Amino acid sequence: MDSLALIGMVSVFTAGITIAIGAIGPALGEGRAVVQALASIAQQPDESGTITRTLFVGLAMIESTAIYCFVVSMILIFANPFWDYFITKAGG
Amino acid sequence: MDSLALIGMVSVFTAGITIAIGAIGPALGEGRAVVQALASIAQQPDESGTITRTLFVGLAMIESTAIYCFVVSMILIFANPFWDYFITKAGG
Amino acid sequence: MDSLALIGMVSVFTAGITIAIGAIGPALGEGRAVVQALASIAQQPDESGTITRTLFVGLAMIESTAIYCFVVSMILIFANPFWDYFITKAGG
Amino acid sequence: MDSLALIGMVSVFTAGITIAIGAIGPALGEGRAVVQALASIAQQPDESGTITRTLFVGLAMIESTAIYCFVVSMILIFANPFWDYFITKAGG
Amino acid sequence: MDSLALIGMVSVFTAGITIAIGAIGPALGEGRAVVQALASIAQQPDESGTITRTLFVGLAMIESTAIYCFVVSMILIFANPFWDYFITKAGG
Amino acid sequence: MDSLALIGMVSVFTAGITIAIGAIGPALGEGRAVVQALASIAQQPDESGTITRTLFVGLAMIESTAIYCFVVSMILIFANPFWDYFITKAGG
Amino acid sequence: MDSLALIGMVSVFTAGITIAIGAIGPALGEGRAVVQALASIAQQPDESGTITRTLFVGLAMIESTAIYCFVVSMILIFANPFWDYFITKAGG
Amino acid sequence: MDSLALIGMVSVFTAGITIAIGAIGPALGEGRAVVQALASIAQQPDESGTITRTLFVGLAMIESTAIYCFVVSMILIFANPFWDYFITKAGG
Amino acid sequence: MDSLALIGMVSVFTAGITIAIGAIGPALGEGRAVVQALASIAQQPDESGTITRTLFVGLAMIESTAIYCFVVSMILIFANPFWDYFITKAGG
Amino acid sequence: MDSLALIGMVSVFTAGITIAIGAIGPALGEGRAVVQALASIAQQPDESGTITRTLFVGLAMIESTAIYCFVVSMILIFANPFWDYFITKAGG
Amino acid sequence: MDSLALIGMVSVFTAGITIAIGAIGPALGEGRAVVQALASIAQQPDESGTITRTLFVGLAMIESTAIYCFVVSMILIFANPFWDYFITKAGG
Amino acid sequence: MDSLALIGMVSVFTAGITIAIGAIGPALGEGRAVVQALASIAQQPDESGTITRTLFVGLAMIESTAIYCFVVSMILIFANPFWDYFITKAGG
Amino acid sequence: MDSLALIGMVSVFTAGITIAIGAIGPALGEGRAVVQALASIAQQPDESGTITRTLFVGLAMIESTAIYCFVVSMILIFANPFWDYFITKAGG
Amino acid sequence: MDSLALIGMVSVFTAGITIAIGAIGPALGEGRAVVQALASIAQQPDESGTITRTLFVGLAMIESTAIYCFVVSMILIFANPFWDYFITKAGG
Repeated sequence: MDSLALIGMVSVFTAGITIAIGAIGPALGEGRAVVQALASIAQQPDESGTITRTLFVGLAMIESTAIYCFVVSMILIFANPFWDYFITKAGG
Repeated sequence: MDSLALIGMVSVFTAGITIAIGAIGPALGEGRAVVQALASIAQQPDESGTITRTLFVGLAMIESTAIYCFVVSMILIFANPFWDYFITKAGG
Repeated sequence: MDSLALIGMVSVFTAGITIAIGAIGPALGEGRAVVQALASIAQQPDESGTITRTLFVGLAMIESTAIYCFVVSMILIFANPFWDYFITKAGG
Repeated sequence: MDSLALIGMVSVFTAGITIAIGAIGPALGEGRAVVQALASIAQQPDESGTITRTLFVGLAMIESTAIYCFVVSMILIFANPFWDYFITKAGG
Repeated sequence: MDSLALIGMVSVFTAGITIAIGAIGPALGEGRAVVQALASIAQQPDESGTITRTLFVGLAMIESTAIYCFVVSMILIFANPFWDYFITKAGG
Repeated sequence: MDSLALIGMVSVFTAGITIAIGAIGPALGEGRAVVQALASIAQQPDESGTITRTLFVGLAMIESTAIYCFVVSMILIFANPFWDYFITKAGG
Repeated sequence: MDSLALIGMVSVFTAGITIAIGAIGPALGEGRAVVQALASIAQQPDESGTITRTLFVGLAMIESTAIYCFVVSMILIFANPFWDYFITKAGG
Repeated sequence: MDSLALIGMVSVFTAGITIAIGAIGPALGEGRAVVQALASIAQQPDESGTITRTLFVGLAMIESTAIYCFVVSMILIFANPFWDYFITKAGG
Repeated sequence: MDSLALIGMVSVFTAGITIAIGAIGPALGEGRAVVQALASIAQQPDESGTITRTLFVGLAMIESTAIYCFVVSMILIFANPFWDYFITKAGG
Repeated sequence: MDSLALIGMVSVFTAGITIAIGAIGPALGEGRAVVQALASIAQQPDESGTITRTLFVGLAMIESTAIYCFVVSMILIFANPFWDYFITKAGG
Repeated sequence: MDSLALIGMVSVFTAGITIAIGAIGPALGEGRAVVQALASIAQQPDESGTITRTLFVGLAMIESTAIYCFVVSMILIFANPFWDYFITKAGG
Repeated sequence: MDSLALIGMVSVFTAGITIAIGAIGPALGEGRAVVQALASIAQQPDESGTITRTLFVGLAMIESTAIYCFVVSMILIFANPFWDYFITKAGG
Repeated sequence: MDSLALIGMVSVFTAGITIAIGAIGPALGEGRAVVQALASIAQQPDESGTITRTLFVGLAMIESTAIYCFVVSMILIFANPFWDYFITKAGG
Repeated sequence: MDSLALIGMVSVFTAGITIAIGAIGPALGEGRAVVQALASIAQQPDESGTITRTLFVGLAMIESTAIYCFVVSMILIFANPFWDYFITKAGG
């Protein structure tokens, strides 16, 4: 029973810490990108279409790294193969 | 009974630390975005509509990383599968 | 009885540390936003209405991350499901 | 009796550390806001009314994060539900 | 008797560390505010009255976060409810 | 059985921490690249084709380091040779 | 007797570390204020009276945070209520 | 059997941490290189061929340090001589 | 006898670390003040008297925080009340 | 047998951490060098030959520090004299 | 005998670490002061006398914090009252 | 036999960490030097001979600190007198 | 005999760490001073005599903090009074 | 025999870490000095003789701190008096 609890504890802790640390970089990176987009629009209002489009592509790329973390975090909570193995064994 | 308490402790701690660390990046990122929006409005008052719209889209993207953390934090407190498993077992 | 005390200790510690760490980012982010609002008003007094409105929306977004932390902190102190479970069991 | 002392120790430590860490961000953020207010007044003395008003609203928002920490710190010292529970039990 | 000593030790340590960490932010924040006040006076000597008044309000706000820490530190040394409880019990 | 649980715990923790830390650098790096792309488009709208193309190549290179981390993280969760060895042995 | 020694050790350590950490912020903050005062005098020699007066008020405010730390440090060494309690008990 | 598990655990942890830490530097370095390439193209569109070529050589050099880390990480997971030795011995 | 040695050890360690950490801030702060004094003299040689006087007052203020640390350090080595108490008791 | 496992574990961990930490500096250093090369080419297209040549020499020098780390890492994995000694002894 | 060795060990360690940490601040502070002195001489060769004199006074003030650390370090090695006490007792 | 393994482990770990940490400084320092060399060549193409020569001398000096670390690292792996002593003793 | 080994170990470790940490500050401080000296010579070749003289005095002052560390390090290795005491006692 | 191994281990570890940490400062400091030398040569080619000479003197001063560390590192490996003492005793 001990193994099950340990795997559970580590999974809970890792799931939280993964998305917490993983959110720092993208949030700052996206912040900077939005900053520059606003500055560029103020500087070149005529190009606001191109700027907005490039911004969205860029935000999507940056957001992807946050999503990797979120995916790993969700896998660890809801589809954790290590947990599943021990549950199966405990239930068997 | 020990496993239950350990899972509980780790969940409490992780829930708090996840949103605490996860709030740093978005808060700073949004701060910068708002800063630039204010600067751009002062520089190009005529474009304040476009600027505000882009700002809101950007804030939404950045806020999303904070919301990932908040979601994980809430899951760990109120819908924690590891805790549920041990409660069920303890109650069975 | 030990489990109850441990859950209590971790909840106390996490509640404090969550709001403490979670207050750093928003305070700095809001500080920067206010800084720029003051600079923009000095630069474009005629736009002070638009600037103030955008500032308040921005501050609300940034404050939201601090409020997430405060909410989690309050939940851990006054509506902690893990604590409630063990109290119920201890009282039963 | 041990549980009581442990809850007490953790509460004392957390109360102090919460307000200590929680004071760093607001103090720096308010410092920057005051800095810019002074610079803006020097640059646009005619707008000192608007600037001062915006400054006070901003300082209130930033101070709010410090007050969240102070509130949690006071709750942990003077209205701690975990401590109350164990006192009641010890006195019962 | 052990509980009494432990509470005492933690209170001593927390009281010191609270004011020590809590003094960093306000000292730096006030330093910056004074810096800008001096620069603004040099730039706009005619506004030195308004600048000084705004500076004092700002310093008071910033100092308030240091005072929160000092208050908590004094409470922990001279009006510590946890210590009082154990003293009463030890004396009873 | 102990070895199996230990390998599982370390794999869970490492998988999370790998992608969490590994997402910081790429997110910041991509953020900067997008920032400059937006600035360059505002400065040279006529070159937006070349700029966008170079941006995408650059983002792909930077993203590759995040993908290395994601790959290692997935291998550790779903195709972990150390885990497989112990499972096989435990099942044999 | 052990409690007495432990309280003594913690008091010695905390007294030192409190003033050591607490001296960093004020020293840097005062350094910056003096820097700007010197720059302002060089820029506006005619206002040296106002500048010096504002500088001294500012330095006093900043120094106050260092003095809070020094006061706590002295209290812990020479008027420590926790130490006094145990001395009294040991002598009784 | 213990040695085998320990070697496995250390290999898993090291493989992850190696690529995680090793991805920070290259990602930031490549980000800066791309930033400047975009700035240079905007400044000298006529030299975009030379700039792009130099950029690719530079990215390859920087990427090489990430690849060293990835190689070591893969060796530790799939071609680990220490693990192989103990497997052979355990199987012998 | 053990208590005496422990108090001695902690006093030695704290005395050293107090002055070591406490010297960082003043040294940097004074360095900056001297830097600006030299720059101001080069810029306004005619005001070198006022500048030097203000510099000396400022250095004295900054040095005061280093002296607080030195005083606490000396007290801990040569006039330590905790050490004196245990010496007296050991000699009695 | 214990010695063998310990040497193995330390070698695995050190091999990974050596190249991971050792890749940070060169990646950032090379990134800066490439940045400036791109800026210089944009500024002086006529000197692109000299610039490229100097860049390559510089990159080689910087890369050499990464290669030192990679060499040590490979030695620790594949030609480790400490491991070889214990293998020989275990096999003898 | 154990107390004597412990006091000795702590004294050795503290003596070294005190001067090591205590040398960082003064070295950087003096470096900056010298930097500005050189810049000021280049800018105002005619004032090199005043500049040099002010530099020397400033360096003496900054050096004083390093000397505080050196003095404490020497006291701990050659005139350590705690060590002397235990030596006397051991020899008595 | 234990001593031999411990010396081996420490040597392996130190050898790796020495070159890893020791590579950070030189890589960054060389990066900056190359950056400036490229900038200087772009600014003064006629002096590229003198610049390149000075660059190489400077790189050699900076590289020397990396080489000190590499030498110590190699000595610890292949010519370690402490290891040799214990090998000799174990073989004797 | 144990005391002797412990004093020896601590002395070895402290001697190394003292000079290692103590070399960081002076090296950076001297680097900056040399940087400015070179810049000043380029700006005012006619004052190179005064500049060089001031540089040497400054370098000597900064080097003095490194020398304090080196002296303490040498004392700990070759003239360590704590070691001498125990050697004498062991030999007596 | 234990003492001998412990002294050996600490010496190995300290020797490596001393030169590793001690190389960071000089490498960065020399890097900056070389940077400025290159910039000064590009700015004042006629003074390249004086600049180069001053650079070499400066590099020698900075290198000296790295050499202090290297000397201590070599002493710890090849002329360690603590090791020699224990070897002599073990051989006696």
